[in-house]
Amino acid sequence: MALTTLLLPDWIIPVEPAGTVLAGHGIAIRDGRILAIAPHDDLRQRHPDADIRHLPGRVLLPGFVNLHTHAAMSLLRGAGDDLPLMTWLNDRIWPLESRLVSPDFVHDGSVLAFAEMLAGGTTCCADMYFHPDAVARAALAIGLRCVVGMTVIDFPTPYAANADAYIQQGLAAQSDFRGEASLGFMFAPHAPYTVGDDTLRRIDMLAEELDVPIAIHLQETAQEVSDALAQTGLRPTARLARLGLLSPRLIAVHGVHLDASDIAMLVARGAHLAHCPASNLKLASGIAPVAQLLRDGLNFGVGTDGAASNNRLDMLSELRLAALLAKGASGDAAALSAHQALHAATLGGACALGWQDRIGSLVAGKQADMVAIRLDAAHQLPVFDPASHVVYTAGREDVDQVWVAGESVAKKLQLTKISARMELERILSRIPQWHTLAVGVLSGTKPYVSKE
Amino acid sequence: MALTTLLLPDWIIPVEPAGTVLAGHGIAIRDGRILAIAPHDDLRQRHPDADIRHLPGRVLLPGFVNLHTHAAMSLLRGAGDDLPLMTWLNDRIWPLESRLVSPDFVHDGSVLAFAEMLAGGTTCCADMYFHPDAVARAALAIGLRCVVGMTVIDFPTPYAANADAYIQQGLAAQSDFRGEASLGFMFAPHAPYTVGDDTLRRIDMLAEELDVPIAIHLQETAQEVSDALAQTGLRPTARLARLGLLSPRLIAVHGVHLDASDIAMLVARGAHLAHCPASNLKLASGIAPVAQLLRDGLNFGVGTDGAASNNRLDMLSELRLAALLAKGASGDAAALSAHQALHAATLGGACALGWQDRIGSLVAGKQADMVAIRLDAAHQLPVFDPASHVVYTAGREDVDQVWVAGESVAKKLQLTKISARMELERILSRIPQWHTLAVGVLSGTKPYVSKE
Repeated sequence: MALTTLLLPDWIIPVEPAGTVLAGHGIAIRDGRILAIAPHDDLRQRHPDADIRHLPGRVLLPGFVNLHTHAAMSLLRGAGDDLPLMTWLNDRIWPLESRLVSPDFVHDGSVLAFAEMLAGGTTCCADMYFHPDAVARAALAIGLRCVVGMTVIDFPTPYAANADAYIQQGLAAQSDFRGEASLGFMFAPHAPYTVGDDTLRRIDMLAEELDVPIAIHLQETAQEVSDALAQTGLRPTARLARLGLLSPRLIAVHGVHLDASDIAMLVARGAHLAHCPASNLKLASGIAPVAQLLRDGLNFGVGTDGAASNNRLDMLSELRLAALLAKGASGDAAALSAHQALHAATLGGACALGWQDRIGSLVAGKQADMVAIRLDAAHQLPVFDPASHVVYTAGREDVDQVWVAGESVAKKLQLTKISARMELERILSRIPQWHTLAVGVLSGTKPYVSKE
Repeated sequence: MALTTLLLPDWIIPVEPAGTVLAGHGIAIRDGRILAIAPHDDLRQRHPDADIRHLPGRVLLPGFVNLHTHAAMSLLRGAGDDLPLMTWLNDRIWPLESRLVSPDFVHDGSVLAFAEMLAGGTTCCADMYFHPDAVARAALAIGLRCVVGMTVIDFPTPYAANADAYIQQGLAAQSDFRGEASLGFMFAPHAPYTVGDDTLRRIDMLAEELDVPIAIHLQETAQEVSDALAQTGLRPTARLARLGLLSPRLIAVHGVHLDASDIAMLVARGAHLAHCPASNLKLASGIAPVAQLLRDGLNFGVGTDGAASNNRLDMLSELRLAALLAKGASGDAAALSAHQALHAATLGGACALGWQDRIGSLVAGKQADMVAIRLDAAHQLPVFDPASHVVYTAGREDVDQVWVAGESVAKKLQLTKISARMELERILSRIPQWHTLAVGVLSGTKPYVSKE
């Protein structure tokens, strides 16, 4: 008989049903899945032989789904801040990537990023970068779920020479890791302005065949929209619609400059949005119209984007920002409530990835991917509403424990699995080399250290 | 001979001179003041008998100045979220305050707030609330610097019956605590719409006599401006200018809806602004025009506002938000750089309080108010630019140690002084009572716990 574990926190926010906070409830777990959620005493009576874990002062909720990231860019964290977008890309990110990106770079950077995410309560992420095989290995090593992007661009990079090569390498990785339950794959055509119509049509066909999502940067900047209008006469969303790409498989990333017609098209075809508020502010792209997405019924998740444009891979700080910004930008203090923000950061992301039957809420039958957040520190007291505290008060300093498929994977911002800790230590010892290489590439730019 | 202490971090960001990061430098402290900043070896040679503290992987910078808060409202943390401003005030905050506010409430709430601030690296704050004597006692108990607001409103509250009574009680507290080096006082007329011309003139005269600042909520909402125009024909800033209140003593709080003429008047008279980005978003007031303040040369600091509208009294998260928001709102990714954000959160606040000769930067002769932030955690690596990491990457989980006047007052988010810890413990044991009282006042509102 499989062992049953009971977790007994003070509160559970299951995300489904919406807006619920369960006081005095616990959760029963077996074989990595959720068996039941019920009052503490009921669970004890039903499972007298269970292994019992008390979580006093903690609230338990689904692990966060980071719907958009470029994990390996953690190695470029802060390598170009306070710069206009084109300077950032031309003088920093592109030179660095063209010189540094390799399977080792992607593996090491992804390990670093996944460790940060997992420790902060993110149990699943959707990644978009080069060398998907390296991303997949890193996710397995650290132990969080990952939907690995198969990136496609219509121009050569050190990773691939042309669209065919990108697609073939992506599909090879997908095939290699087919048996891994914690991994998924998705196509990740970079953006409408870097991928042509033929390639987009081919990706759409393949995505349907393989039954995988498609993530694409969409209308991140005002210039992207005006350039597209000048060049094609169509807004990028309308172009994707015409190519047949708008469907429940599509995850539009950013969508800062969506207008009512764009939103209506995305909603009508059941597409999703990945909202990345910190990155959108930091690169001065703007603020996505979240209050309107909610009114119009577009499903969206929350993403951190990569560490080169954020620079925290921290879903608690991201969802707090999302909730604050939606209010400030819309003029409505009720916009994106705490419960709505938690939904976006969990089930919203899971739905976008097509994983809503596996993760994203604490419901019997789903995977036991969970985060326990302490609400009893001095800076958390008093507690009027646990959902409000998770969104507006908690930081990752309050993340107490994290589980993936019922297994404890992090405690107090430290990884708990020995194999994951060892892999992280191995990568940390290599960071100085990556740093030195990156500084070499950037040499000639203004040094940050002033000497007296 | 007084003992000299040498702190030897990897980096120092002294804030003055602007934009400087000193690698391999340390700081010598004696009698609570900064003696010198110099390379590690130089300091060791000059001070062979000093007590040496190594801070590897840490960056040392001035403690943060929280330029606007209502500390005691920590007891109402999260008591009314996701509500439109007038519902928040009418149904939550005002009923709670009218029933709960007392010297005990203010003392307990202020202790809780000051402990949170200090542990997170805030070494000085400007408070605006009732019962300034209770605020002063709390600040002394916890050990951070505080400029205590002497609140004045032209209508009665349980604290005072009329403007005269507010002023007298404020002045009595100021007189009682005159000898305390870590305390200052300031007048805090609540807002132009709650304080009449006669009272404002009287406050201005008294402030000049006593040589203390005046803090006032100013143009926080668009409605405040339009109401003022309808009622007086003047924008609030213009009204204050006409009354003679604009001067280097004046701290305009919020200033979300400042136009070019308001800013020009504030700059011309040397006034200051307290920028509270999280509160302004959460209450849907809007976004202060920070990029323009920088262009026009208006000095500003950063404030958390009270925990009822934030709900974190956390300057690191506040200054990160300020830096991100300035870029996103202005469309300029270079707006409010990391160094500019750090200046605002330290020296900008100190200048506004008239304490620029005592605190706000790490310069020989100033008080040794400092925060050490670790930059060597996995989620911080690699480090290209320590200033960028403090603003964009660090959270209060990375605050390693805090000093006020050279004394270590917090370590790893815990207070280190025994007397402060004991007072905090005493207050924590009383939080459940305050919580019960507040829930009693709010009873009749929708409960947050859904029962199955």
